[in-house]
Amino acid sequence: MNFEHLQKQVAFIHEIDKVKYIQRKTRLFNSDRNENDAEHSWHLAMMAIILAQHANEPIDTLKVVKMLLIHDVVEIDAGDVFLYDTAISHTNTEAERKAAERIFGLLPPEQAEELIAVWEEFEAGETAEAKFARAMDRLEPLLQNVSNNGGTWQEHNVKYDQVVQKKSVIEHGSKTLWDFAKTLIDDSVEKGILKK
Amino acid sequence: MNFEHLQKQVAFIHEIDKVKYIQRKTRLFNSDRNENDAEHSWHLAMMAIILAQHANEPIDTLKVVKMLLIHDVVEIDAGDVFLYDTAISHTNTEAERKAAERIFGLLPPEQAEELIAVWEEFEAGETAEAKFARAMDRLEPLLQNVSNNGGTWQEHNVKYDQVVQKKSVIEHGSKTLWDFAKTLIDDSVEKGILKK
Repeated sequence: MNFEHLQKQVAFIHEIDKVKYIQRKTRLFNSDRNENDAEHSWHLAMMAIILAQHANEPIDTLKVVKMLLIHDVVEIDAGDVFLYDTAISHTNTEAERKAAERIFGLLPPEQAEELIAVWEEFEAGETAEAKFARAMDRLEPLLQNVSNNGGTWQEHNVKYDQVVQKKSVIEHGSKTLWDFAKTLIDDSVEKGILKK
Repeated sequence: MNFEHLQKQVAFIHEIDKVKYIQRKTRLFNSDRNENDAEHSWHLAMMAIILAQHANEPIDTLKVVKMLLIHDVVEIDAGDVFLYDTAISHTNTEAERKAAERIFGLLPPEQAEELIAVWEEFEAGETAEAKFARAMDRLEPLLQNVSNNGGTWQEHNVKYDQVVQKKSVIEHGSKTLWDFAKTLIDDSVEKGILKK
């Protein structure tokens, strides 16, 4: 039996183990250590399944879940960029595109093309699926910071206006979740864990 | 606006953060630390997406991915059991059922019922989706042990016959993947990282 096709798939499965070593700025919900990209991606995929009913438009949940499971794979080569870092571009950089080509390129060609297209769709943020997936990516660290007495807002002196600006992306995926997120942000100001 | 429904969903999303603290026996592919259940679940979901074409029967990939993302959530209460532990039952124990009721029970009732049913389907291992999901769960640690010079086989003195017996479950999900897995097992014996 010829396992050439399968060996390419296994090479990719092996390579993405590195996602487990990429540390995010945000801490886990109980604050005692940073989250890595694999844990983050798992949590976002779970959130998409749980919260899919709140999407503004009908969504293909499997597509959303694929986007979320793979969205940080490019960080194996390109690294994690903090949401509130103003010095570095956040979307679809040249380094990320090269990373996508190298890493998804380990797969058989058709599958590589498919996953690069899914990743690009997520990055572009224009389809209903991409909008909802991006909403998950913004909502999780908000929930974590609320749970962590301000978390990265406190550590990096991030203010209310910046949070509202960055998190308003949630509205494009789900007006309901954005209404909810705003109550969390306002509560955080009241509790003194986020400064105006 | 009434967020009662959503607050239940967020309580569940918060609770499952604990999955990130459950340590498995198996180490990451490059061996330097143990894997946790969130990383494991993410990797299995990725594998299901990449390898779906090798399933014996047509499968609903979203169902398989859901199974894999949630399959270890019960370990928050019931703990992880090592595959080669002969003293403890592995499937659908009373402790796991209680855990499923408590943890999925944080969700709105309809959603709790749906996810408990998905989890029970995985545990029963009878549908095409459950068989393929279980194949992923057996294949990942095999790939890790091969990558780790024998990994848990060496650490816990696990022998060839035990590995073949436990891993043959892969065949129920995918004959192709089982044929491939057998070549990995045989190569491991040849390399001296698995004893007959």
